[in-house]
Amino acid sequence: MIRAGQLRPGMQVPSENEIINTYGVSNTTARKIHQEIESSGWATRIKGKGTFVRQRNVQRSANRILGFTRNMIEAGYRPTTKILDTGKIEAGYDATINGRRYTMPGPVYKIHRLRLADDVPMMIEVRYISMQFCPDIEQQDFGGSLYDIYEKHYGLQLREIRQSLSAVMIDAVTRSFFNVQKPIPAFRVEGVTFCGKEMILEMEDSIYRGDKYRFSVCATP
Amino acid sequence: MIRAGQLRPGMQVPSENEIINTYGVSNTTARKIHQEIESSGWATRIKGKGTFVRQRNVQRSANRILGFTRNMIEAGYRPTTKILDTGKIEAGYDATINGRRYTMPGPVYKIHRLRLADDVPMMIEVRYISMQFCPDIEQQDFGGSLYDIYEKHYGLQLREIRQSLSAVMIDAVTRSFFNVQKPIPAFRVEGVTFCGKEMILEMEDSIYRGDKYRFSVCATP
Repeated sequence: MIRAGQLRPGMQVPSENEIINTYGVSNTTARKIHQEIESSGWATRIKGKGTFVRQRNVQRSANRILGFTRNMIEAGYRPTTKILDTGKIEAGYDATINGRRYTMPGPVYKIHRLRLADDVPMMIEVRYISMQFCPDIEQQDFGGSLYDIYEKHYGLQLREIRQSLSAVMIDAVTRSFFNVQKPIPAFRVEGVTFCGKEMILEMEDSIYRGDKYRFSVCATP
Repeated sequence: MIRAGQLRPGMQVPSENEIINTYGVSNTTARKIHQEIESSGWATRIKGKGTFVRQRNVQRSANRILGFTRNMIEAGYRPTTKILDTGKIEAGYDATINGRRYTMPGPVYKIHRLRLADDVPMMIEVRYISMQFCPDIEQQDFGGSLYDIYEKHYGLQLREIRQSLSAVMIDAVTRSFFNVQKPIPAFRVEGVTFCGKEMILEMEDSIYRGDKYRFSVCATP
């Protein structure tokens, strides 16, 4: 229920007795459920008051291709988007990511958006989209997932995303978009997305709030 | 030569003419070499003076098991270590990483170290090592790679590392270790290392300087 967003941060978790009565489970099971959601950080027990869903950081896997929209829904939040600016760049776009230079030939469509979860600003992104792969992209609705547009409208498959994460302080402009008074640390994410071998579909330069996000990564030999 | 550390930050890159004479390549090739090391950020051309190896951020792959020592050598720096504190924790250690609780039964050996590259402090780490897998670990030399000790002395193989990255401001104590005056953003890395299925070899809680590090990640569907 927490994961699905039916129980939201601040809401009270059903007590052990309510769980027993509603789902017909034993009190051992009900106790175990409470222990698990507390030990995993989903909820906190407040003495004499009950157990409440925690306001958690959003965890974002860096090993998985996962858009903001789906990431937020999985974390139990309602994602929304505010479009700040869009425009066509005839000359194309290029950037150095992890020491390698990536070049997108023009025209490229630039989309600057603020992404929110339960109306709280979470990240601000600039996406550079290849109009060679996505002609007439300007006619699409940018209120939701661009990944959905790539896959459903253009029939493109996302193959790989390479990203560079920096730890930065947010600047005054970004602070005003995030509506925070104090300087906060953030992740700067620069990325390049491929829809085939050496085929660059989009590039990105985004700021994820450090007080809202954690990135999970997994390394193997 | 830059990658191998023979040409270090601040050193002058051989000119196009020197490259032609030393390696017997054409001037097209020599020009291309210069263009590539400049566009990829390895070196900067200073008008009328020559081309110089840049003081670069260190890139750290989050998808690869890679210790500090090897990471620095590959980046062309000389790694050193300052041991701040060590001790045995009989009760064991546990922490929540990416929403999951990991528990190491005692005894656990705690090692607190400052890691430097060319004498510049880069990161500060606390490692919690299972003494069930590494008995008598306190008798080892902690001046270098712990991964080497695990592999060479104990014959253990590192299978997987799961990490959580946060963007944080470094606190006053950490600032004094890093010898920086101003508050700087940093990565906090919490991790758990496995030497087999469900076998926790060590856990970590470290601070990587944001002005020195970038993490590279790769995502697939």
